[in-house]
Parts: sequence; structure tokens; C-alpha cells
Amino acid sequence: MGTTRFQIAVSLDGYMAGPHQSEKEPLGAGGVRLHQWAFPLKAWRRAQGLTGGAVNASTPVVEEVQASVGAVVMGRNMFGGGPGPWGEDPWRGWWGENPPFHAPVFVVTHHPRGPLELEGGTTFHFVTDGVGSALEQAKRAADGMDVLIAGGADILRQCLTAGVVDEFYLHIVPVLLGAGERLFEDVKELELEQVRAVAAPNVTHIKYRVASQRPAL
Amino acid sequence: MGTTRFQIAVSLDGYMAGPHQSEKEPLGAGGVRLHQWAFPLKAWRRAQGLTGGAVNASTPVVEEVQASVGAVVMGRNMFGGGPGPWGEDPWRGWWGENPPFHAPVFVVTHHPRGPLELEGGTTFHFVTDGVGSALEQAKRAADGMDVLIAGGADILRQCLTAGVVDEFYLHIVPVLLGAGERLFEDVKELELEQVRAVAAPNVTHIKYRVASQRPAL
Repeated sequence: MGTTRFQIAVSLDGYMAGPHQSEKEPLGAGGVRLHQWAFPLKAWRRAQGLTGGAVNASTPVVEEVQASVGAVVMGRNMFGGGPGPWGEDPWRGWWGENPPFHAPVFVVTHHPRGPLELEGGTTFHFVTDGVGSALEQAKRAADGMDVLIAGGADILRQCLTAGVVDEFYLHIVPVLLGAGERLFEDVKELELEQVRAVAAPNVTHIKYRVASQRPAL
Repeated sequence: MGTTRFQIAVSLDGYMAGPHQSEKEPLGAGGVRLHQWAFPLKAWRRAQGLTGGAVNASTPVVEEVQASVGAVVMGRNMFGGGPGPWGEDPWRGWWGENPPFHAPVFVVTHHPRGPLELEGGTTFHFVTDGVGSALEQAKRAADGMDVLIAGGADILRQCLTAGVVDEFYLHIVPVLLGAGERLFEDVKELELEQVRAVAAPNVTHIKYRVASQRPAL
């Protein structure tokens, strides 16, 4: 049986995105600083279809997160915002023609739409009956492999609160954003267990297991 | 020249104390959970004058924080709240007759009072002209050794914002408090460098250096 997990980069003051998020700046003001540790990595570049890059203490963590993912769940804004309800020439997301998921992706949205098959094994399925349904479909599609919840914050919080997350990775970045979107806003009463912590250049990776599972979706 | 530093335990959602702090419950509801990793440690027990205890990956971190401290700065609530202005039988703080500081402690308060000398090398000095003055006096008393800012949150935030902190240790605890007092509320624009991260039982210790020093006190 596969696990359900997510990863997220957070600032020291607990933000996973800066303030004033917009389509032009989906990570908010300063939010890109949360991910700068990842950009030089070979493991990150490879997932984007790029060659070269660095290997360091972050590498096994990034590889572990990406390994054995059989399906992905994400919110509609993470798919790509765009001009919704889908028109005749529907928006194909902002992940390009070869998205870095290489697995079926279940997008939680209010707007029905047929599947969108792109290159490299990524097919977006649009789910209109909520995140619980998207997770169920993802588990079925993963067929024993793992389910990765890609975000955004709202989806992660819903999944945490619903008790359907088995484990998660925080990438703790030495940055203060001062404002923005908090991962753990209004998420309470999870019993957590620290599994591992890894010091890497400009980031500390900590893996947690959720001990108290109270499925509610 | 000694450094000025602090250490603080924080929940995953960024709280250094739970909600509803009071004299009876100075750490707030659930706040004691932030420190449970420390209580079994020999290094922690020794500082309280207790014997026995565990040695684990936290030990060298706790020892490093406690090492070469020549003076301490703290806020009045951390000294012990109590019935202020000081009367004829003044409150001696809640640290007991042999406090775990073993160094001069400069308490930022509005209420003048003479020094209070206790056992084990701890003398409390009461400073009425602000945290900047307390830090200056502490540096002088430390005489080349380090200055430890003990807290509370308000004092730590003032020192961070004033740019007088050289380094700090976060003890990141796998607990969600949901509400309480945030360390980094309204602290902005510090340039930080991650120095080291240590995985230990039920806690991850991360040491940061403040790169941008803008002394303003």
C-alpha cells in the first residue's frame, strides 16, 4: 500500500508563499527565495527535462520525494489558474508540454473538463467533486505506488485536517518573508513524529510522519 | 569579542508559547510540549542542579549554547512576573535560590531595584532604560565572553529587529500548537545564513547566523 505525502518549502517565519500572490507572481513577493536551494540541483533540473546541475545533501531527499510516485493531486491554481471555465481553446496549464510529474495528475476544480494528455506520461484529470474524491481516484490510479499532494496551500491544509496525509517533508529555508500564506493556518491537533532531518546547503529538510490518522474526507 | 545569541524552541507552526499565557502557565496552553525533548537531558538537568539524565544528539547543541556565556539578558516576565513594583519583601523570581544562569543577568523592567545576588554565581541586575542599555551592560559584564538573550519573545523580537543578534538556535519541535505567541511576528528583512542542522530525538536544532547587522538600539 502506497503512502500519501507532500513536500513544501517554508520560511523560518512559517510562510510557504509571500504576500500579493498573483498569476504573474504565483509564489508571492519574495516567494521564489523559498526554492532557490532547489534550482541548482541536478535532481530538480532532471525533473524539468534539463541536464546538468549539482549533487549535494539535498539530492537524496529530492529523489526520495520523487521516487515511486504513482499519481499526483493538486489544486486548480497550481495547475495554472488561467481563464476558467474552459473555452474551446482551453488553457493547458503553466507546466509546459512536458510537465515534471510523469504520472496522472488529479486537479481539484469547479469546472468540468475532459482529460488533458501531455508528453512524458503526464495526464491531467479534472475532478469536480472535491479533494477527497481526487485523492481516491489518485490512489486507485497509483495502484500501490505513492500519491504526492503537490499543493497549493489550501489543498495541503484540507488534506492535513482530514487526516489523509501519511508523511510530509518540510524544507526549512533561512529566509524571513514577513507576510504571505501560512501552511499550518488553522491546522490543529495532528500528532507528529520526526522521522529524519538533513542539513543541506541553504536548507534543512525534515521528514515527519503523521501518527494520528483520523480520515474524515 | 563575544557573540550575542539566543536559543528558542518553536512549534512547526511557528509558536514559541501556546495561547493563554499566565503566571500559572507561563508557556501557555500546550507550551510545555515545546521543551519535552530537553527535560530528559543530562545537560539540561545539570544546569538546574540535578544529576543523571540522557546524552544524545541534542547534548552538544545544548552544551554549545550554554558554553562561554558571560552574561544574560531577559525581560521582566521571564525573571518571574510577580507583584511589581518591588515591595519591602521583593519577589525573588521563579528561578529558585540557585538559578541555572551562573552569570550576571540583566532584567529589562520599568521598576528600579537594587541587584539581587543568589547562589551559584547568578546576580540579577534590574535595568530601567531599555533593552539596548541592558545589552550594553551585559556585554561589559561578559568581558569578551558571550551574551545570551534568554527571552521572552518580546525581548528576542526587539533584539532581532535592532540587529544586535549575531546568531541563534531554533529547536524545531514536531508539535502544532494552533495558536500562541510567534517568535518572528513583525521581524523582517534579516539576512540569515544557515550554519548547521542537527537531527536529535523529537527535535531538530538549526543554528543561524545573522548576516546583515544593522545595530539600531
